[in-house]
Amino acid sequence: MKTLLEAIRPATFIEPEKLIKHLGIDLTIATETFQHTGSFKFRAGYNVALNVPNDEVFTASSGNFGQGIAYACQLLGKKCTVVMPDTSARVKIDAVAGYGATVDLIDVKKISRAARIAQIAKEKPNAYQGSAYDDPLVIEGNASLGDELAACGKDFDAVIAPIGGGGLTSGIIVGLRRNGKETPVYAAEPLAGNDAARSLREGHIVSNEQEPNTLADGARTVSIGEHNWKILWNGLADVVEVTEEKLIEAVRLYYSLANLKVEPTGALSLGAILEKPEVFKNKKACLVVSGGNVDAEVYKKLL
Amino acid sequence: MKTLLEAIRPATFIEPEKLIKHLGIDLTIATETFQHTGSFKFRAGYNVALNVPNDEVFTASSGNFGQGIAYACQLLGKKCTVVMPDTSARVKIDAVAGYGATVDLIDVKKISRAARIAQIAKEKPNAYQGSAYDDPLVIEGNASLGDELAACGKDFDAVIAPIGGGGLTSGIIVGLRRNGKETPVYAAEPLAGNDAARSLREGHIVSNEQEPNTLADGARTVSIGEHNWKILWNGLADVVEVTEEKLIEAVRLYYSLANLKVEPTGALSLGAILEKPEVFKNKKACLVVSGGNVDAEVYKKLL
Repeated sequence: MKTLLEAIRPATFIEPEKLIKHLGIDLTIATETFQHTGSFKFRAGYNVALNVPNDEVFTASSGNFGQGIAYACQLLGKKCTVVMPDTSARVKIDAVAGYGATVDLIDVKKISRAARIAQIAKEKPNAYQGSAYDDPLVIEGNASLGDELAACGKDFDAVIAPIGGGGLTSGIIVGLRRNGKETPVYAAEPLAGNDAARSLREGHIVSNEQEPNTLADGARTVSIGEHNWKILWNGLADVVEVTEEKLIEAVRLYYSLANLKVEPTGALSLGAILEKPEVFKNKKACLVVSGGNVDAEVYKKLL
Repeated sequence: MKTLLEAIRPATFIEPEKLIKHLGIDLTIATETFQHTGSFKFRAGYNVALNVPNDEVFTASSGNFGQGIAYACQLLGKKCTVVMPDTSARVKIDAVAGYGATVDLIDVKKISRAARIAQIAKEKPNAYQGSAYDDPLVIEGNASLGDELAACGKDFDAVIAPIGGGGLTSGIIVGLRRNGKETPVYAAEPLAGNDAARSLREGHIVSNEQEPNTLADGARTVSIGEHNWKILWNGLADVVEVTEEKLIEAVRLYYSLANLKVEPTGALSLGAILEKPEVFKNKKACLVVSGGNVDAEVYKKLL
């Protein structure tokens, strides 16, 4: 049974000279696109599956967390059930099933994800209910990326990472701080679902009225998690709100100037630089790319 | 002035579990898509520019070697001229010019590349004429990748790399052998321009009748170089001829199952596995991806 550090792959660091020249900003990319299951979510998924005493885990996820925790459970010999809308892309359903998890397809017009999760919690009293972000084990799993950023030998003036529920940014803050690094951490959020930005302005968790309509499907969360908020409220330097236009431009720039296939959510951190270049102008910035799982049809349209 | 080892980036190693599962073959990717200038050609370009005593270098290249040597010369403070057909993609011309080289555009209907190179050789008697493959300095530069494969801690049963002029494969053989590794090296070549396969069968260099019509633009060479042939003739395990269909499938598989943006030439090594899975079935194979520079319009069509 591998420890978290043995199981995860380190982030891949890239200094994209063409992109640096194009923007005139000193950038390093820390990409999780080559992490197991193609996104940082494997870090959290593995840490959860490794540390809970339960032999079975269930969660609702139509995206990367489902794949991350499914593969983690497969590696650790635990059972896993992932609730997904029956409208999810076939490629995502197949990926989760391919990692050995039970895919529990629901018709969201008949039952909400939360209601189905409550049903499963009753049906499986000995199983652990996994959250994609609001869980100390998730934050701790993602903190391993903060450790890597602290240990990579570069003194960044800014780390920019996408934010949805806040699991990644809170983990990065924990990892950096416990290694004595006070590097400012910026969250990059779609303007179309700017609950984190509003939360930071108002000093308490603010929810989106509904699931935000953004290309960044990993950031379609309704609000930040409670555990995440405790860390983010004091720990975040700022939240940069990214328009869909800058998000698309960021996906294209990664393609053409860094040879990097990035999913829209993963491109938020570069989107933040495109949105507010003046904030990062004379800084050594680290762009965290959270994942690379994007359907070919969507990607072709973005390019 | 950096040494070759200080200037290059190590190849990025990826164990693509989804792709491994899909093919049922134990694979490791060694990708040069994040090398400086987006392909392995920077290794050779830098080694040439570093080691020739001349202050000026010229070459004919419409592809990755042009970018590699242009950037190398920029880093080393040398002048560089790159001859390119005036029909080259604007993005490629801009890339070479962006690295500070003089782009010498020719109308190939009026003058051949070789004739223009001969002219420049007369005009610039003190400049070094760089070849993209047929040069011991090129082989030596690429041998640094063979060193990395030898030192990566995995004992491969097969290394598969694309072949055009033979600079990459001969370099990998030199690098592996000088580190005591007898790992068989396979060359992956487009069937549409199979001069290397025919050369190996006939025991001497065979040329294509004309520039081959293949998507793998880095393998549109007319024949293997003399210096390369000396190493390849005894050093290659075999040449696998890859159809355009398998080449396209390989580009798509890298996209969907490894999150990797690969140019068609770079996908040849995976194409070889798709073409001859029986050869690699129970082997631990290393797939060398030579580069990632592909225009978005071409890539979208391939996907």
